[in-house]
Amino acid sequence: MSDVSFDELVRDGETRRVAEWLRASTILEIVDELARLDPEDTAVAFRLLPRDRALDVFEALDPGDQQQVLDGLRADRVRQIIEALDPDDRARLFDEMPAKVVTRLLGQLSADERTLTTVLLGYPEDSAGRLMSPEFVSLRATSTAGEAIEKIRREGLDAETVYALPVLDDHRHLIGITGLRALVLAPTSARVGELMTTDGIHQVTTDTDQEVAARLVREVGLIALPVVDSEGRLVGVITVDDALRVLEDEETEDFALAGGASPLRGNYLAVSAFGLARVRALWLLLLIVAAALTVNVLQVFESTLDEVVTLALFIPLITGTGGNSGAQASTAVIRAMAVGEVRLSDLPRIVWREARVGMMLGLMLGFAAALPVVILYDADLGTIIMIALLIVCTWATTVGSALPLLARRAGVDPAVVSAPLITTLVDASALIIYFVVAKVVLGL
Amino acid sequence: MSDVSFDELVRDGETRRVAEWLRASTILEIVDELARLDPEDTAVAFRLLPRDRALDVFEALDPGDQQQVLDGLRADRVRQIIEALDPDDRARLFDEMPAKVVTRLLGQLSADERTLTTVLLGYPEDSAGRLMSPEFVSLRATSTAGEAIEKIRREGLDAETVYALPVLDDHRHLIGITGLRALVLAPTSARVGELMTTDGIHQVTTDTDQEVAARLVREVGLIALPVVDSEGRLVGVITVDDALRVLEDEETEDFALAGGASPLRGNYLAVSAFGLARVRALWLLLLIVAAALTVNVLQVFESTLDEVVTLALFIPLITGTGGNSGAQASTAVIRAMAVGEVRLSDLPRIVWREARVGMMLGLMLGFAAALPVVILYDADLGTIIMIALLIVCTWATTVGSALPLLARRAGVDPAVVSAPLITTLVDASALIIYFVVAKVVLGL
Repeated sequence: MSDVSFDELVRDGETRRVAEWLRASTILEIVDELARLDPEDTAVAFRLLPRDRALDVFEALDPGDQQQVLDGLRADRVRQIIEALDPDDRARLFDEMPAKVVTRLLGQLSADERTLTTVLLGYPEDSAGRLMSPEFVSLRATSTAGEAIEKIRREGLDAETVYALPVLDDHRHLIGITGLRALVLAPTSARVGELMTTDGIHQVTTDTDQEVAARLVREVGLIALPVVDSEGRLVGVITVDDALRVLEDEETEDFALAGGASPLRGNYLAVSAFGLARVRALWLLLLIVAAALTVNVLQVFESTLDEVVTLALFIPLITGTGGNSGAQASTAVIRAMAVGEVRLSDLPRIVWREARVGMMLGLMLGFAAALPVVILYDADLGTIIMIALLIVCTWATTVGSALPLLARRAGVDPAVVSAPLITTLVDASALIIYFVVAKVVLGL
Repeated sequence: MSDVSFDELVRDGETRRVAEWLRASTILEIVDELARLDPEDTAVAFRLLPRDRALDVFEALDPGDQQQVLDGLRADRVRQIIEALDPDDRARLFDEMPAKVVTRLLGQLSADERTLTTVLLGYPEDSAGRLMSPEFVSLRATSTAGEAIEKIRREGLDAETVYALPVLDDHRHLIGITGLRALVLAPTSARVGELMTTDGIHQVTTDTDQEVAARLVREVGLIALPVVDSEGRLVGVITVDDALRVLEDEETEDFALAGGASPLRGNYLAVSAFGLARVRALWLLLLIVAAALTVNVLQVFESTLDEVVTLALFIPLITGTGGNSGAQASTAVIRAMAVGEVRLSDLPRIVWREARVGMMLGLMLGFAAALPVVILYDADLGTIIMIALLIVCTWATTVGSALPLLARRAGVDPAVVSAPLITTLVDASALIIYFVVAKVVLGL
């Protein structure tokens, strides 16, 4: 990419060099660069792509970027691209578009593709039905391997995968799974029924949450996951690449929440500073309202503070340490829930463990912090800080571990119980603990 | 699983019911339950598995759990299992074992398997060479599709995948990629050379970082990624399931760091309370040392505090808000780096954007917080809080966005710059800003 970066070339209108670079780069490199551009430049650069690469690049873009690109293209080119997309990718793109535009584009599709797409769009958002590909090759248990391979040669060109092949009975119920590899390795006269796996086949229904389905694909290492309707008939398959996209989006969302912000739609660099501020503002406002609690707590203890102003010096240390140990506990539990290691029913066991963890950490930190305080200030202050840290840490890990589980029980995404939220919530209670301990020790 | 949970059945020694459950469940369910058990129970439950399912379950366990299982088995059974593993899975397990045990186990392997394993173990830890499978089927461009399929039938049984097939020249250099699907769909007389992709083939070298290679597999949606040695000769392929495992581990690690803790080895529930405390203790100690800075800062301003004790009431609000906006910025940048949206060279652009974001957020929060303060306290205090929040937020987002990038430049994992670290670092500077603003406004 020489010394000048791609986005500079585009911004400077160096059409020839942009086109050259687009010819010489891999699809992934192109997608990466397009996603980094300012929205209006994305369409400009896309138009310079050679025709034969344009569709591959388009398919690999995020729906947001896809829309940017379409906005900059002529109507007939838009129709071509939409028609060429896989039905599941098309449904995903339509999700992001205004209903009026979707209706118009649907009307321009060929009848076959239109039917496939409207079926997908009929399933609830974020459901496995939306994610699946309705184009698959299914086999019969009574066919021979040779016949099956013939069928794949006839129908396989349109299917999203032929590496996982569902085997169906007369009622389109899934009775087994096989793969192209098994068919090719077997003698041509072998029956599909002998080549298929029937034990513990993983499948989901169209209503299953996309994330649950995608996680299953990853955990089991599947190439494709069969999706059945409410009567158990096979209606589609979720391929591994689509599952991975869902998981990456989900993880990006979890990370945003972990940092106390709403998820960003689109590439970090392509979002404007105002856009960044917008996804964070609501959370910060909520957190500052919660932080107002600390002001009230301190007001209650203002006379104590007035008497022993030295107590104020340790306020950030006490609240900070409580917040940090609470954040550690909540992050560990949220991740364990996300990867399926922990269930709701584990709540008592987890809280009891985390309380003990908090006690151990509190003891250690209490000693570590009290020692210099005893030396530099006095023994009373050291005692206060030791006891306060012990109680605060135990309380913080208990709250931090229980809240994500309680959030799930209340039907809220546990990732919402982020480190910033825990920190802020623990702050006020940490102050109460600190000042009560201080009053008792100092006999105020 | 009826009303009694699996772990209770195991703990109560209900051998018959445990065996029954193990027969009736899917591999994934079994792996999930085994991983949740206390270490000593894992081996007990594993021994009750039917022989034909034991290897599948073993392969799906984490290396830590695998070791627990092996510790509870007789030597000849251990040898059987180790021999049956794929070379890359075996190398991953050996990584976790004491060198003495590895040497003994290597000695018991068949010559072929031993060679494959020692080659893998020769590559650096966390390199693509360690992750790849050395068992693959390669083709020649001059073969026909029919000949290629014959070759796959002969050699494909051992290979980890036949869905992505590297095409090599006489010097074992990668010249193209094809797949079983293309071979099956083509006429048997077609040449492999016409069926392969040659443009923009993705490949990595044995030294490439595992995470980089795995991310490439996910981004491009590959079934297998070719790995070449320093002379460009093909030595293995990384399959999508292995890549996904690496990414999940990496993401779990990033989450742990985001919460300010070292990554946990193994299932959350299987780690003891003491083990949990251990991975968190070091971070908390570091953070409390950093928090000691806040004590020093407050000491400097103790006389100001003594004069206007009301200032103390807002300390947690100021530090908390600064910490939260810094955490938001660092989380966003860390994630953008992890998914490859942002590079080191973007540093100036990012910091400038984040500074503006911080200013906008600071303005908004400043007004939101100052209004009630002006009403409930007085105008001076309101002014102090407004100005302090504006400066603190701008400073916090700047620091929060710059530190992860600087960490990467210094060769440190950016995920180490966690929300707790940013919060603690920002605390002391936020206090300085707050008190300086207060002194100026109050004319002290």
